[in-house]
Order: sequence, then structure tokens, then C-alpha cells
Amino acid sequence: MNDTYALGRELAEALNPGLGQALEERYGALLPGMPQSVVDFACGQQYCRPGLALHDRYLATIAALTALGGQTAPQLRINISAGLKAGLTETEIAEAIWQMSLYGGFPAAINALNVALNVFRQGDDP
Amino acid sequence: MNDTYALGRELAEALNPGLGQALEERYGALLPGMPQSVVDFACGQQYCRPGLALHDRYLATIAALTALGGQTAPQLRINISAGLKAGLTETEIAEAIWQMSLYGGFPAAINALNVALNVFRQGDDP
Amino acid sequence: MNDTYALGRELAEALNPGLGQALEERYGALLPGMPQSVVDFACGQQYCRPGLALHDRYLATIAALTALGGQTAPQLRINISAGLKAGLTETEIAEAIWQMSLYGGFPAAINALNVALNVFRQGDDP
Amino acid sequence: MNDTYALGRELAEALNPGLGQALEERYGALLPGMPQSVVDFACGQQYCRPGLALHDRYLATIAALTALGGQTAPQLRINISAGLKAGLTETEIAEAIWQMSLYGGFPAAINALNVALNVFRQGDDP
Amino acid sequence: MNDTYALGRELAEALNPGLGQALEERYGALLPGMPQSVVDFACGQQYCRPGLALHDRYLATIAALTALGGQTAPQLRINISAGLKAGLTETEIAEAIWQMSLYGGFPAAINALNVALNVFRQGDDP
Amino acid sequence: MNDTYALGRELAEALNPGLGQALEERYGALLPGMPQSVVDFACGQQYCRPGLALHDRYLATIAALTALGGQTAPQLRINISAGLKAGLTETEIAEAIWQMSLYGGFPAAINALNVALNVFRQGDDP
Repeated sequence: MNDTYALGRELAEALNPGLGQALEERYGALLPGMPQSVVDFACGQQYCRPGLALHDRYLATIAALTALGGQTAPQLRINISAGLKAGLTETEIAEAIWQMSLYGGFPAAINALNVALNVFRQGDDP
Repeated sequence: MNDTYALGRELAEALNPGLGQALEERYGALLPGMPQSVVDFACGQQYCRPGLALHDRYLATIAALTALGGQTAPQLRINISAGLKAGLTETEIAEAIWQMSLYGGFPAAINALNVALNVFRQGDDP
Repeated sequence: MNDTYALGRELAEALNPGLGQALEERYGALLPGMPQSVVDFACGQQYCRPGLALHDRYLATIAALTALGGQTAPQLRINISAGLKAGLTETEIAEAIWQMSLYGGFPAAINALNVALNVFRQGDDP
Repeated sequence: MNDTYALGRELAEALNPGLGQALEERYGALLPGMPQSVVDFACGQQYCRPGLALHDRYLATIAALTALGGQTAPQLRINISAGLKAGLTETEIAEAIWQMSLYGGFPAAINALNVALNVFRQGDDP
Repeated sequence: MNDTYALGRELAEALNPGLGQALEERYGALLPGMPQSVVDFACGQQYCRPGLALHDRYLATIAALTALGGQTAPQLRINISAGLKAGLTETEIAEAIWQMSLYGGFPAAINALNVALNVFRQGDDP
Repeated sequence: MNDTYALGRELAEALNPGLGQALEERYGALLPGMPQSVVDFACGQQYCRPGLALHDRYLATIAALTALGGQTAPQLRINISAGLKAGLTETEIAEAIWQMSLYGGFPAAINALNVALNVFRQGDDP
């Protein structure tokens, strides 16, 4: 196993506790090594990079998932929860989502606001 | 004319000088009032809102335009230029774009990096 | 408040009664002014423009939401209801949706037809 | 050959003269029968259907291509030209495109307006 | 009725038994002829073409539906079932889906893997 | 450096000679380590996986890039070239692309066929 995998696992445990194990249980038998790839590439080779603050990384992700449209609701939920832990305020998240009406259209922004409202109200329990 | 239009015009002049006039010359005859709507809604009712720092708004926009794919190159160019003026570093912009490989796919991230490299090299002259 | 907001509110009340208040209750606390922006820009600065008949505006919107894919189901439902009130026939709506198989693909067209069938059967109650 | 192919060929000749032959020359050797499929399905089984006026079909198409983003520029050009021949005014086309800022985002609407302006200025010569 | 319709009906009966009748019952009254168009064009003029093995056609479709994002879940389910009948293995399907993380992003790949897991576990009963 | 990086570099050299160096020259200064991530994750952790034949991986990719729309032309060109080297025939590639008219719409399929025709005629020199 490589260094980026170890780095990624540390970050994943801090912000999405149990992510690695959940991936392994769900996908590991069908796609051996896939859970490691997610943690290595997404967490270790991307979110751990220097040069952009972690809360800004979540802001960028939340904006992109919003613009991509409502089919990304499960991922939006995860990243909004993680973004709050990384220091974003509810207002910053809502503002970034609403601004996406300019780029992904009003339906995309409204759908994502509904996801955010649910996260804000219910906490990050799945 | 409403207050958000005046606010929007001020911001547009600061970050995209000449935007309002360019819109009027290009689209005003075909769609009367459309240039005012762009300045009012996009600049005045969105980018001027409190609650999210202006450079974070540009970061969110650059991330979203990247994830939406390469057809947004003209808008990426404008927003990368404006983001630099609003205080983002070249590294922050490049990191946010590259991270989008996770959400919009590798082609979208690579295409947007190419746009960013051109802006960084050539400055923001159209 | 500006003129386009007043115009937009009038149209919203005619075609989506209660829209403004529903937006305020749902999003007003998190994003102050956002409900006014929706009514002002979407209804007042877009749907109230001259140059294209209102029922044609709804036809264009239904076609676009179809092509954008099934994540826009909530918005499709609202616009199909409003389009019927603005004078579109069920057949015109179904034809426009089915034609979108050419541009958004068969899954997008089929998913939108399912939304339309539900609206036609159940009326426009949410 | 079936009836819808004959119907489609008639419509194609009226609104996009030379379309069938152009498809045959470009794609016929690589994909035998594909040009006939385009004319049969797109023109004969879709645009020739009753229940929605032909100019409304073009309006729906132009709106959808706009919302899908700027990569559809070649198809937008063809359909704007055909829509003008089918009776749409330049204003109706521009209004439908600009309204798409609400659903496909501002970049998509602006990019499509640029295509429309080019068609309006230059005529429909490719 | 044309030859491609007869061909398409044969293939549809083999891989999606009851598809034609289900389309007729659901959409036939609203859009007369639409069920025949689906069978004719999608099955007869596309999937029956020579030059690419049927199981490769399903592989291509599963990959594309994955990359297009989670709103295509109903179509993914149908095509994964049909692909298994046409000879694809569960591993081949899972690998093609996971590879799409590179092109449609991680959320699209994860959402499609969830659909595949459901099909693999439950069989193809709707 | 990890094993998947070494595996990925070998595959990249076989099918896209010079890819790693081109990435380094273009993006390495702005995003240190990004070229290694592309080779590691895309080539080593994805295309090198067992369970799906390499030429089927390219078929899946070509189908997905087609369905995602014309903004992926540079990536389509690279993957069509690599697919030919991995054993796909021109006909198989063209068939997979044309079939995408069902999922990504006719404009996406036509735009991708144009890219394929260019690759087939000119070879894979950029």
C-alpha cells in the first residue's frame, strides 16, 4: 500500500468515520481493491493536497455537485456534512448552492437547497 | 431601475470592466432589457449577497463550470480572471479545478486546466 | 422593491398560487431575499417578457427540463401544471416531451412522460 | 422502406434541403443505413407527428439544445434555420433561448444566443 | 409496418419480454404510435444492427447510462438485466461501471454500482 | 511510488506513448504530482484491473464520452486511437457511437461520429 492511501485513510476517518469499511462491505466482494482506490485517489491524492484549504475544497465540491443536478443528492449530503466539520458555516453552504442557479439552473439550485436544509435539520446521520 | 441593479453595476465595473456595455452592444437590440437583467440578477442579486466571501464565490463558480464540462470555456475564462482579481491564487484555482476530476470526470478537469493555463499565461485580455 | 418583482408576483399568483409564500417559508430564513429573487428574476424578468407567448414559454421549459434529465421531476411537475393553465393541451405537452428523445435521449423522454402522466391523472396538487 | 421514411424525406427536403444526401456521403459507408434511420426516426417518426405544430416543435428543440449546453452549436444552427423557415420569428427564438438561463444556466443561454446571432446575421448557409 | 419493426419486436421479446405491451398500455393512448417507434428505432434500427456484438452493445449502454448520472436508474436496471441475458458477467458490468468514475465522476459511478448490486441480488423482476 | 503507478506507466507507454511526459510538461509545475495521479489512478487503478478485457474498456469509454456530449472531443480522439490499438475495429467503434443516439441524443452521436471519422482518416497523430 502506498503513502497516499495511508494519508487518505486518516482524512477519511476524521471527516467521514467508517467510510472505508462501509465501502469494503458494500463493494469489496464485487470489485476487489475499489474501496482502497476511492480512499487513495479521492482522499489521499485529492483532498490531502496542499494549496487549497480543506474547507474551500468542500465548498468547491458542494458547488459542483449542485450544478451537476439533483441526482447527486447522496454525495451532496455527505459533502455538506463533511464541509460543516471542516469549518464551513450553514450560510456559506447555502449561499454557494443558491449562486449555482446561475450555472446549473434554478431546478438544480433548489434541489440542492432542499438537501442542505435536510442536513442542517437532521445532522449528518445517514 | 432597482437597487440590486445599481449594486450589480458597481461590482461588474470593478471585476469585469465594460461587461454591461458589451452585453448591451451584443444583445440589447435583440433582447431589450436582457443586459440589465444579467447585471441585476447575476451581479446584484447573487455575487453582491453577504454571507460568502467574494473570492469564495468565484471559487465555487470555477469549480461548477469545470464540472459542467468544456462547453463553458468562455465563462471559465471570465471567472478565472475575476477570481484572480478577487484574491484567489493561481494554485487555489488549479487545485479546485483538478479536484473536479472526482465529480465531473477527468476530461472536464483537464479541459478546464487548459483554460486556466491560458488565462495564467496570457492575462485576462479576451 | 422593483417593478419586475411586482410583475413577477402577479404572474406567480395567477399560475402557481402560493409560490412566493412557500419559498419564503422554506428558504427565507436561511437565504434572506432569495424568494424575492426567484419571483423577480424568474417570473418578472423572464416569463413576463413580451415577444413569446406564455404558453410557448412553458412549452420551451417543459422541453428543456425533459432534455436535462429526470432529476428535474419536481420542476417538470410544476411547469406542466402551469403550462396546462396557460393553454397547452395534454397532447402538445406529451408530443414535446417525446420529441426530446432525439436530444436528451430515450431515458430522459420516458422519465418525463411518466411525470406528465402523473400530472394529467392527478391534477396539479403537489 | 417504410412509410415514415418517405414522410421524413419529404419534410427533410422542405426544411433542410440536401440533408439526406449529406448524411449518406458523410456516414453511409461507415454505418450503412444510418442516414435512412435519421430521416425515418427523427423526421418521419417525430417531426411529422400530429398534435404539435411544426414551429412549436422547433421551439421545443431550440430550447432543449440551449439547455443542454454549448456543445450542441452545430445542431442549434440547423434547428434555428429550420425554425425560421417553419414560421418562428427571430424574437421568439431569442426569447426562448434567453429564458433557458433559468434551466440550463447563464453560460448555456449566452452561448446559444451567440449561435442565434450568427444565424440571424449570416443566414443559414453552413 | 416496416421490417425493422418486426426485427425489433423479436429482439425485444427475447431480452425484455412484455416491453412492447407495457409501452402500449402506458403510453399508447397519449402518444399513438410511440410504442412502435421505440421498438422500431431502439430495437430494430439500433440493437439489431450488425457490426457490434449484442453483449458489447449492452456494455456500451451500461457505461453511457452510468456516465450520464443517477437519474437513469430505471434504464440502467433494464439494461443490466438484458446485458446479463446477452452474456455479460456481473464482473464485466461492475468493472465497466466503476471505470466510469473517470468520465462521469465518482458519484455517477457509485450510484450506478448501487443499481447493479440491486439487480444482481434481486434478479431482474421490476 | 506505489505499484499501481508502475503498472499504469507501462500501460500508458504501450497505448499512449509519451502521455506521462506530456502531462508533466503541461501541468507538473502548476500541480505537482498531478501527472503521477493520472497515470496511477486512470491507468494503474482502472484500465489495468482484471475482469474486463482492455478493448471492452475502451468501448465503454468511447460510448460514455459520446453520451456526455461533444465537449469531450479531445478525450474521444485519444480513446478512439487507443481503442484501435487495443483491437477494436472501426466498425465496432462507429456502431457503439451511433447507438448512443438513444442515450445521449442525436447531436451527441453525430458530433462523436465526426471525431471518429477524423481519427479513422488521419490516424492518431494529434
